[in-house]
Amino acid sequence: MADFFVKRRQTTECPNKRFSLSVQRREIARKSTGKGSSKLVAWRYKVDEVHADSSTFVAGVSKSQAYDQVLTQATALFAHQTNWVCNTANTASLLYHALQALPSPSNKVNWAGFYVLDPSHPNQLILGPFQGKVACQTIKFGKGVCGAAAQSEKTHIVPDVEKFPGHIACDSESRSEIVVPVMKEGKVVAIIDIDCAVEEGFNWEDMKHLEELAGLLADACVW
Amino acid sequence: MADFFVKRRQTTECPNKRFSLSVQRREIARKSTGKGSSKLVAWRYKVDEVHADSSTFVAGVSKSQAYDQVLTQATALFAHQTNWVCNTANTASLLYHALQALPSPSNKVNWAGFYVLDPSHPNQLILGPFQGKVACQTIKFGKGVCGAAAQSEKTHIVPDVEKFPGHIACDSESRSEIVVPVMKEGKVVAIIDIDCAVEEGFNWEDMKHLEELAGLLADACVW
Repeated sequence: MADFFVKRRQTTECPNKRFSLSVQRREIARKSTGKGSSKLVAWRYKVDEVHADSSTFVAGVSKSQAYDQVLTQATALFAHQTNWVCNTANTASLLYHALQALPSPSNKVNWAGFYVLDPSHPNQLILGPFQGKVACQTIKFGKGVCGAAAQSEKTHIVPDVEKFPGHIACDSESRSEIVVPVMKEGKVVAIIDIDCAVEEGFNWEDMKHLEELAGLLADACVW
Repeated sequence: MADFFVKRRQTTECPNKRFSLSVQRREIARKSTGKGSSKLVAWRYKVDEVHADSSTFVAGVSKSQAYDQVLTQATALFAHQTNWVCNTANTASLLYHALQALPSPSNKVNWAGFYVLDPSHPNQLILGPFQGKVACQTIKFGKGVCGAAAQSEKTHIVPDVEKFPGHIACDSESRSEIVVPVMKEGKVVAIIDIDCAVEEGFNWEDMKHLEELAGLLADACVW
């Protein structure tokens, strides 16, 4: 059982009422606004146990709310766990189920997971935990969307993968893709990779939240 | 590109005609039966690339045929890859999609994946790659079905998890479970864990094939 603050944002209400059975609001931390009143700074949660309901996302929430739930759940999961395999495995589940709960095109996501630095080969990524169909085992830096993002150290949003030079078609059903590098001490340690079965599956909102998630993972895990 | 023999069994026909786009039969190895004829010993495959179609299982195949496809695909995937994270991630995908393609109760499988020895804590399992909802991060040896299988070094088939002493309810939807230890040099290095949303989801056939898969994983991976 662990108490901790979710410090990453200031907000005044829970983004998702059916938040999670495993993470329950415990107390509210308030900060003086200087006008005799106070505003909500963070919730304090009590985490009893990890629960599959963390992956349950209510239909009808916005993309921003779904990612908020992912980020809050991930923060809770990582509070006392630094193992990167364990943490990316649960994060892939959170992402896949969050996106599946959203309207199209997000619910057409068919793969969500991770590639990490291959300990056996320099400048090569190797498959990490994911949700979806069987995936390419290794990807050289610079090859395909994943390799390009790893080499350039920049998020890539590809509205139509068939127009991306050197695209690696692990799954012919995938039509668009977002890849976000996970950077630790100025170096790529992993990438978040999400595929969608329709074109233009991802936008700036995915990028913004996934980059926040990448930062969280970079800090939380021993890579 | 890799040539290799699938040596693990003797059979006379492909268990699944729509086998995989990525693994194609190349030539047949025959052994004399001593009566002037020969029997099929193994197929030689040419693996061009890993492809998501490896996770595509045709409706209407038997459980035995679906597991045959899992084992053959896994053999192909592991031929030139020893990284346990990569190999268990793809195996979880193969298992989940194979079981989803079968009639009930197998298609009610709601979680398929791995726990491995926790490098930070003796006598503890830690979450590895999986397909399904967010899962418990660590499990002590002896706790729940996974911990019992790890401690006893024996496969556990639990027809009703609610009747299992000390069951860990990561997901209240799970009603039955099978856990198969992966043994390397006489010691547990990991477990295969599969949950089903209905009672009696698993039988001796799952056990037989999953134990074969566990042996394959034990040999193929550096743990």
